[in-house]
Amino acid sequence: MKPVLIVGAGPAGLSAAQALSAVGQRCILVEKEATLGGAPILSGYAKLVPSGEWAKDAIGGMVSRVEGNSLVSIHKSSRVEEFSGAPGDFKVRLSSGKNLEAGAAILTTGFTHFDSVNKPEWGFGTFPDVVTTTQVEQMISSGKGIRCPSDGRKPQRVAILLCVGSRDRQIGREWCSKICCTVSCNIAMEIREELPDCHVYIYYMDIRTYGLYETKYYWQSQEEFKVKYIKARIAEVTSNGEKLIVKGEDTLVKRPITIPFDMVVHAIGMDPNVENKSIAGVFGVKLQEHGHIAKGQSYASLGETSRPGVFVAGAATGPETIDDSIAQGKAAAMAAFALVHQKAPVAA
Amino acid sequence: MKPVLIVGAGPAGLSAAQALSAVGQRCILVEKEATLGGAPILSGYAKLVPSGEWAKDAIGGMVSRVEGNSLVSIHKSSRVEEFSGAPGDFKVRLSSGKNLEAGAAILTTGFTHFDSVNKPEWGFGTFPDVVTTTQVEQMISSGKGIRCPSDGRKPQRVAILLCVGSRDRQIGREWCSKICCTVSCNIAMEIREELPDCHVYIYYMDIRTYGLYETKYYWQSQEEFKVKYIKARIAEVTSNGEKLIVKGEDTLVKRPITIPFDMVVHAIGMDPNVENKSIAGVFGVKLQEHGHIAKGQSYASLGETSRPGVFVAGAATGPETIDDSIAQGKAAAMAAFALVHQKAPVAA
Repeated sequence: MKPVLIVGAGPAGLSAAQALSAVGQRCILVEKEATLGGAPILSGYAKLVPSGEWAKDAIGGMVSRVEGNSLVSIHKSSRVEEFSGAPGDFKVRLSSGKNLEAGAAILTTGFTHFDSVNKPEWGFGTFPDVVTTTQVEQMISSGKGIRCPSDGRKPQRVAILLCVGSRDRQIGREWCSKICCTVSCNIAMEIREELPDCHVYIYYMDIRTYGLYETKYYWQSQEEFKVKYIKARIAEVTSNGEKLIVKGEDTLVKRPITIPFDMVVHAIGMDPNVENKSIAGVFGVKLQEHGHIAKGQSYASLGETSRPGVFVAGAATGPETIDDSIAQGKAAAMAAFALVHQKAPVAA
Repeated sequence: MKPVLIVGAGPAGLSAAQALSAVGQRCILVEKEATLGGAPILSGYAKLVPSGEWAKDAIGGMVSRVEGNSLVSIHKSSRVEEFSGAPGDFKVRLSSGKNLEAGAAILTTGFTHFDSVNKPEWGFGTFPDVVTTTQVEQMISSGKGIRCPSDGRKPQRVAILLCVGSRDRQIGREWCSKICCTVSCNIAMEIREELPDCHVYIYYMDIRTYGLYETKYYWQSQEEFKVKYIKARIAEVTSNGEKLIVKGEDTLVKRPITIPFDMVVHAIGMDPNVENKSIAGVFGVKLQEHGHIAKGQSYASLGETSRPGVFVAGAATGPETIDDSIAQGKAAAMAAFALVHQKAPVAA
């Protein structure tokens, strides 16, 4: 049987590779970066939601298992430049010039973090103590702790603003990014744990800690960690020279708010991968209205792209959690395995 | 290789069976009801979220494909009464007295709909025109349309109350049921489509149309279908003899509300399967704090129960969508297949 091509080595791609190798199926893992692991590793995430494991252990462990696997042929710092053929018999050309064959392909090409400079009125890029959730993850995972970038002091008051680059028609990001609420609850608890005297406020439109995240993150953060939640419409983040000033309207008490903070955190959303147009072009697959890779709408075709033999999993299809990306990666692996199995059946 | 035992024939179990048979793996599908399909079929759901397919077509199609599959041995109106042995070599005894062997097992035992009589102050069981989302699904799927049960009239004003049996510590349901917000947006649009003169109000704590559901359901329901959303704390549903009266507090304008409706719909949540204690006993697996079947907390063990060789997928582990249940079913199938494959390897 020909190997299965997997494009992108984040949680979805790693889980697909691991699942395929576990049933004896060879695969080819192509990653554009020099390091495997996807966003959790490349962006230096701290403790992941909801496992509570450190990204470097949990996703790093997935990387090690795949890197040590003889059935997985890994191509780092590589892109797929040409892709042709039919299910069971695809030809693949990499940016290195290598030519390969594959029986099926799985796109696990992930997302791009929203760049907060695209929401200029909220102060990122203007005030050094306005940071993103990714930067806070890095402060925690590096062991340096939560510090104001401007002068290295421990913040006494932190505001986390939800939906930065999500649910925002003004800047062309109408979707919800699914996991930022829960990640923000988790980060708020991490801050309170490291700095028990620091007050942490979360400004929200809706709190979307769906399913079992409700008690584990939303309730626990309030009841045990005393994180405060304020339903608000934020207008701007400015500075009085000493403190950052968050201005807006508290939509529950219907009055304007002007509140000083030491640090403001943007809970940044998940954009479609900025390379999706080129990926769609190379693989001949369709994109959705917002620019994500289109997947089958029917339950019978979940995980299929518009091109037979090319599957898709994880955040490539829209904002996604790590858990669901891993499950989808395995599901796509199962579908790809069935395809190459049917195209080249073993003797019964 | 020994077959894989799958317990429960809802979306997760059906997708697992289909995935296993697609790679030539035999499986045994045990379903306690006389009909396959799980909640979408047994409860008569209408158009599903987010595929927009009718349940009887989409899930019915999954049932047909499994029922016509010679690799899937189906046992309806059956329960597993005894389960013993080790990975690769389990012994199974059914309620019919049949003894079977299995190499691995997948629990796809689903959930139980919240029973609204457990929230008596919201009028279900007292007033006939207080119904559940499941009943509205049945009105639509039966072709009879949206009618007030008391006298068969078309309602002119409908209230949908979210979080009935969810996020409610008073009645011991602290979790969020994940998909009721989106299902309610969808039902509201269905009502508006059938009855364009009917006013539909949704009373909510938070609207949790996460990910791409945001525009497809929440925004579309407001902008195209003119569904009205009111953030409120509902105290009680009573009657003035002619109309149902919804009483509570509008939490945005901070004032008491007393509003007449023809029909009130409870967006009921997902309880753990009422049989989970017995299921956990038979299979020797642990339950989570809320009574769902415990799954691996680490990313390396997602889809595993506390017992080696026994996997779990779908709403058995907590409130879950059909999409994710299907992906998890396939992921569990992949893990179970890898296990039986490793225990009885084919010659290379």
